[in-house]
Amino acid sequence: MRDDVPAGARKDAFASDADPIERLTLLLAKLPGVGRKTASRLTFFMMRTSESYVRELAEALVELRTRIRPCEICCNLTAVNPCSYCTDPRRSDECICVVEQPQDLVAIERSGEYRGRFHILHGSISPLDGVGPDDLKIQELVDRVARGGVSEIIIATDPDVEGEATALYLARLLKPLGVVVSRLAHGVPVGSELEYVDHVTIQKALDNRRPL
Amino acid sequence: MRDDVPAGARKDAFASDADPIERLTLLLAKLPGVGRKTASRLTFFMMRTSESYVRELAEALVELRTRIRPCEICCNLTAVNPCSYCTDPRRSDECICVVEQPQDLVAIERSGEYRGRFHILHGSISPLDGVGPDDLKIQELVDRVARGGVSEIIIATDPDVEGEATALYLARLLKPLGVVVSRLAHGVPVGSELEYVDHVTIQKALDNRRPL
Repeated sequence: MRDDVPAGARKDAFASDADPIERLTLLLAKLPGVGRKTASRLTFFMMRTSESYVRELAEALVELRTRIRPCEICCNLTAVNPCSYCTDPRRSDECICVVEQPQDLVAIERSGEYRGRFHILHGSISPLDGVGPDDLKIQELVDRVARGGVSEIIIATDPDVEGEATALYLARLLKPLGVVVSRLAHGVPVGSELEYVDHVTIQKALDNRRPL
Repeated sequence: MRDDVPAGARKDAFASDADPIERLTLLLAKLPGVGRKTASRLTFFMMRTSESYVRELAEALVELRTRIRPCEICCNLTAVNPCSYCTDPRRSDECICVVEQPQDLVAIERSGEYRGRFHILHGSISPLDGVGPDDLKIQELVDRVARGGVSEIIIATDPDVEGEATALYLARLLKPLGVVVSRLAHGVPVGSELEYVDHVTIQKALDNRRPL
């Protein structure tokens, strides 16, 4: 799989004495949400299913890590640089939505509500995990805003302790640059049952109540 | 990944226009028990985690399909032929336990109760799915018994309609060869609650009741 090793020599790397069934099961068991039993079930599936599927899956895994790079503008993970969100002419340059992870961008796009640009921090400030501002793509965001043309930053970090801390940090950093900094609203989720909504969310929903 | 293609040329096969994130997500969504959402979560994990893990996983997938072959004696899937169950001198040749799938062998081994040999049918007779006796490793089993040295066959196919039909078919085929043919006992599972045991299982447990 390594491109610097010719195909013939690569075979030796496979010629391990370990049982291939056991090896794959142990690797699959490291996936999030996959325990030893599910890993074993997946391994047996890989033996039963078509060989072309398994080979394509292996190729797609390597391709992901070979072709996917951070976008030089928004730091989103992408196969084309700059990414399609940064080059789309129908999107407004005036607004940047800041999220923690690429999957958060996908969630916001799913809403169909937002037509501005994005910026991906790749994490949130978390002193307990040893993650400070310098470990995130914050300088890249400041540079983007400093280049001008941006009037609003919507901070859409997670509504947890680390996400809130990151939002406050960014607000303090970006306001002096003359942009409006806003935050996603807190409130009761649409379609949920009030009975099961936690009390902090209800407090926030009361604070942010709107006239009908 | 194909061994007949040199590493340099192989890169072209990867140079697909499709988005690598979308491609991997679609492939992962084909795994049993993995929906579109889990597939997307796994893909994002693959981007975040160490590159060496992803490459090893891809190698292990290819290795599984390259090195795993059916054992020439018991038809179990194995990297060494004959497999370790067939060559283990501490196991008795006199008894063969017949199962549908390799994972059933693992389940029986986990009990620690059985010290004979195995035979894997790779399925069960299921006319509705177009699976007849010729599609299973039944001839291989008959040949093994015909070579002699076997006194008992324990049929451990699944306790469902197809498994029962397969057990009856095998019993009729093997008894004339002069071997004892037995079947795993039906009854209430150990540690279960009687309240939740289905009525057919309770009927069988009553029929097979044992004196205390």
